[in-house]
Amino acid sequence: MDEKEIPSLAEIHIAASHLRSISLPITPILTSTLLNTLTGRNVYLKCENFQRTGSFKSRGALNAVLNAMKVDPNLKGFVTHSSGNHGQALAYAASIVKRPCVVVVPQGTPKNKLDAIENYGAEIVICEPIPASRTSVCLQISQERGFLIIPPFDHPDVIAGQGTIAVELLDQVPNLDAILVPVSGGGLISGIALYTKRINPNIRIYACVPEGKMLEECLKEEKRLWPEPSQFLKTKCEACRLQQCGILTFPIMCSLVEKQVFVISDKIMINATRFAFERLKLVIELAAGLSLGALLTYFDQLDPNIRNVGIILCGGNIDLSVPLPWLQEDNQ
Amino acid sequence: MDEKEIPSLAEIHIAASHLRSISLPITPILTSTLLNTLTGRNVYLKCENFQRTGSFKSRGALNAVLNAMKVDPNLKGFVTHSSGNHGQALAYAASIVKRPCVVVVPQGTPKNKLDAIENYGAEIVICEPIPASRTSVCLQISQERGFLIIPPFDHPDVIAGQGTIAVELLDQVPNLDAILVPVSGGGLISGIALYTKRINPNIRIYACVPEGKMLEECLKEEKRLWPEPSQFLKTKCEACRLQQCGILTFPIMCSLVEKQVFVISDKIMINATRFAFERLKLVIELAAGLSLGALLTYFDQLDPNIRNVGIILCGGNIDLSVPLPWLQEDNQ
Repeated sequence: MDEKEIPSLAEIHIAASHLRSISLPITPILTSTLLNTLTGRNVYLKCENFQRTGSFKSRGALNAVLNAMKVDPNLKGFVTHSSGNHGQALAYAASIVKRPCVVVVPQGTPKNKLDAIENYGAEIVICEPIPASRTSVCLQISQERGFLIIPPFDHPDVIAGQGTIAVELLDQVPNLDAILVPVSGGGLISGIALYTKRINPNIRIYACVPEGKMLEECLKEEKRLWPEPSQFLKTKCEACRLQQCGILTFPIMCSLVEKQVFVISDKIMINATRFAFERLKLVIELAAGLSLGALLTYFDQLDPNIRNVGIILCGGNIDLSVPLPWLQEDNQ
Repeated sequence: MDEKEIPSLAEIHIAASHLRSISLPITPILTSTLLNTLTGRNVYLKCENFQRTGSFKSRGALNAVLNAMKVDPNLKGFVTHSSGNHGQALAYAASIVKRPCVVVVPQGTPKNKLDAIENYGAEIVICEPIPASRTSVCLQISQERGFLIIPPFDHPDVIAGQGTIAVELLDQVPNLDAILVPVSGGGLISGIALYTKRINPNIRIYACVPEGKMLEECLKEEKRLWPEPSQFLKTKCEACRLQQCGILTFPIMCSLVEKQVFVISDKIMINATRFAFERLKLVIELAAGLSLGALLTYFDQLDPNIRNVGIILCGGNIDLSVPLPWLQEDNQ
C-alpha cells in the first residue's frame, strides 16, 4: 500500500471543511438513561441516521466529489457500484456539483433505496448480485462515458470523509473510551480510526460485523484470509453483505482497530434494530443494529475500564413500505 | 373556574425543579433541512417521543405525584383512567415515589401500552370504552383503597408539569414565532400556553386536532358547544379520541390559544407519521402526526410572518408489534 493513499489528519480536517462549505449537518449525539442502565456504561449514540441521504455515506461521497471537482472542474460525471447507501450518497453529491451520475446496483436492492437514488437525479443500472459483476459494469460505464469512478470505501477521499464523524464525535463527547463501528468494506471504521487514534491513541475502536465475515482471524494474523473471489455473506443486512474489507482499508484496520471483533447474528441485529425503534424511538437500518446489538448483547465482554462508549448508528434507510424485519415471517 | 386552579408562572418553574430533582431528561430539539425547505420556515421539533415513558405525560404525572407526596407523605397510592400514555406515566411516577398505582383503561387499548403500564409495576383495570365508565370505575377504586386520583389533564399540577416543555423550548429556541400542539383533553396545550404567553405574548399557540373535535367553533364562541354526554371521536389516534376538552383546560385555551384550529384527517395524520419515520428517522405516535401533519399540509395557511415554528412531537408510543399504520389494510 502506498503511504500517500492513507488520509492524513490534515486531509480529514479538509474533508470537514468541505462538508461545512455545503452546510452538511453535524449529526447530534443522543443518550438514553435506559441504555446506560442496561449496559452500566455512558453510551453516546452518534446519529448518522439523521445525516443527509439517511446515512454517513454522504460524507465520503461529498468529499470525494468536491475534491475531484477541484482537480478537474470539467469532469463529465460520476459512477459507482453500491448496494444502496453509497449510491444514494453519490447521487446526492453529484447533484450538489451539478454533474450526471450512474449507480450500478445488484439485483435485489430494496425499492426504497432505488427510489432515493433516482430522486437525486441519478441513473440506475442493475447488475448481477455477485461482486465481480458490479465492478466490471461500473468500469465499462466509466470508460464509455468518461465518468469518474467513486468506489464505496476503497478511496482516500471517501475514507477521509467518513473520518469527519470522529472530528464531530470527539468534539461532542469528551473522555470517550471506545467507539463501536459497523464494518462492511471498512471505509467508515478506517476514517474514524485514522482521526481518533491520532488525537487520542487510548480510545479503542471496535469492529462489529455479521456472521461469516472472518474479520477477527484476518486482523489477528494481519492477513487477507478471505476466499477468492470475494463473496457475499448470508445476512439480512444488505449494506454489509461483502465478506472482504478493502485493499486500502484492511491495512489501516490492522494497525488501528482492536483485534477483538464483535460478531453479530441476524437475530441479535434485528432485535437491536427493534430496540432502537421501540425504546429509543429511533429509525435505524439493520447495519446500525450491528453496533447497537454488540453493545446490548456483549457489553459484559468490554473491558470494565471502558466507561464512555460511542455507538455509530450508521444509517436509517430501512424499507418501511414492507413489514418491519421482526414482523417478517422468515425472521420470527 | 377558580383562579387558584390556574397554574402560575412560579408553579411551572417549581414543576421544572421537581422534574430536575429526579433527573428527568431535557428533551432535544431536532431540525431538518428537508422540513425547512418543504415548508419555507425554520422548524424546531421538540422531541417528547424521547421523554421517559415515551411521551410528555411523564412530566405532568411526576409533578402531580411529587406535589401530592409533599402535602401528604403517607399517601397510600394513586389511580387514574387513561387510554395509555398517562397511565404509563402515572405508573412510572408512582414507582419513583414507591407507591402502588391502579390504571383504568378502556377496552381496545394497544397491548404495547398495557405492557408498559404493567412493566412499571401498576395494576390494570379494564373498563367499557365510554367516557362515563372510566370515570366511575376510577372513583370507585379511589374510594375503596384510599388512592389519590390523578386525572390525565384536568388538574393544575398536571398542567404545570406539561408547561415545563415550554420552559425548555423557549430556552432552546430563541425567537420562536409559533408552536403547533396536538390537543386531546387540553392539558399539554394549556401548560405550554400558560408559560409561553407570560414570557412572550407574541408567540402564537395553535391547536391541532382530529376531525369531529369541534374545537374551532368552541374557541370562537368561547363556549362548550360539545354534545353531552362526552363522546369519543372516530379516529385511528387512540390518544386523542376524547371530543371534549377539560373543565379547567378549556377556559385557558379560550384566552391563550389561537382561534384558528388545524383539523387533521386520519389520512394526513398517518402520512405525517410515515414522513417522520421515513424522512426524519423518528419513531412517533399518531398523535404527534397531528402537529407534524398540520405543518406539512397547511403550512401555507400560517401567517407568513411566522418564521420559526416549534412542533410538539408529543410521543413515540406506537405499537410496533403490529403492522405500521400505513401498511394496515383499512388505512390504505
